[in-house]
Amino acid sequence: MNEKSDSLPVIAVLGGTGKEGPGLALRWATVGYQIIIGSRQEEKAKRVASEMNEKLGTDSITGLVNADAAQGADICVLTVVQSAHQAALKSLREALQGRILVDATARIEFHDPRPPEPPSAAQVAQEILGPGVRVVAAFQNVPAHALRQNLGQKISAEVLVCADDVEAAREVIALAEGGGMKAYYAGGLENANVVEGLTSLLISMNKHYGVKTASIEITGI
Amino acid sequence: MNEKSDSLPVIAVLGGTGKEGPGLALRWATVGYQIIIGSRQEEKAKRVASEMNEKLGTDSITGLVNADAAQGADICVLTVVQSAHQAALKSLREALQGRILVDATARIEFHDPRPPEPPSAAQVAQEILGPGVRVVAAFQNVPAHALRQNLGQKISAEVLVCADDVEAAREVIALAEGGGMKAYYAGGLENANVVEGLTSLLISMNKHYGVKTASIEITGI
Repeated sequence: MNEKSDSLPVIAVLGGTGKEGPGLALRWATVGYQIIIGSRQEEKAKRVASEMNEKLGTDSITGLVNADAAQGADICVLTVVQSAHQAALKSLREALQGRILVDATARIEFHDPRPPEPPSAAQVAQEILGPGVRVVAAFQNVPAHALRQNLGQKISAEVLVCADDVEAAREVIALAEGGGMKAYYAGGLENANVVEGLTSLLISMNKHYGVKTASIEITGI
Repeated sequence: MNEKSDSLPVIAVLGGTGKEGPGLALRWATVGYQIIIGSRQEEKAKRVASEMNEKLGTDSITGLVNADAAQGADICVLTVVQSAHQAALKSLREALQGRILVDATARIEFHDPRPPEPPSAAQVAQEILGPGVRVVAAFQNVPAHALRQNLGQKISAEVLVCADDVEAAREVIALAEGGGMKAYYAGGLENANVVEGLTSLLISMNKHYGVKTASIEITGI
């Protein structure tokens, strides 16, 4: 942990025991953010937190059930799969009040990638959570394998951050940049549906060109 | 005209008297494509064609009513505004049979930019035109002012080309590259709705960052 950690927000990564969640958490822990891993099962959260501590040589990462993780954090990042999205939000509605909820849900079936219908996952989240939670959409397209490489260095993934609350978006842009990613404010929560749809385009490009690395960059800013 | 023009497809730019259509047409005419400008009014088409000939010092660009322009061409590029899209396609259904129709419709209200609902403009076009026309979505996000600068040189705009018919997409990718643009196949016609939605994100980014130049680039291919 670096000495700036007292001024950094505490981050809970909810549903954080898959691939994307620990990837993000490792990046943030490496640069001094206090991280809480959340899971529906406390045992699983503690095991993943312990593996991450071992990897980083720290003991600062804790594991808790999702609701407790949320209540101990300033910014909560939801990294569940699409099929678990609504149930997770409904069960965490109370615990998330007063916080920023970053919705990273990738709305894609990898075997049959198609652009999703509106509303965006983040709009659904805002509807479920109500006005007491500031919902921000981000990190939907960041490949988990890229997050785990070269911790503490910049990665080439670019993050499009959508939120109706611009100040909340700024906090998440700072968080993305803290983790070594370039991040841009890209409009309100309804624009997140386009960001979700980009995954389908990137998969189509990867298939057509026989690569696994197609990605989007922003220029001109 | 360069000497390769006999092997190049003839291009009709339908509804080609606005900003985007002449911009594209100038680029293609400069490198030797035979261009027909189409408009609902023959007079207007002839006037725009004449202005372009004067600018380029040629007399090769012709102006015709849309249906005649379509019938004289191999590839037809539709550059009407969204409100005229369906009526134009219905009136040109017969004239377009056997051809490639490139749908460049930007589905955006610039005073209130929002991502469009599916289906994409190009899916609507395919539905109206039937299976005898190969519909390709492209050029929706290319700024008209960029097209008119430095004719004959590459421009930084990247074109995402969506089509259910991959061979037709290849012909349009060649056309885009002929005009100095980088172009990528980005999946089927339903993915075009995401490309249309990118306009809303780019406008949001331009407003937020106080620029006019935000754009998307593809990397990793």
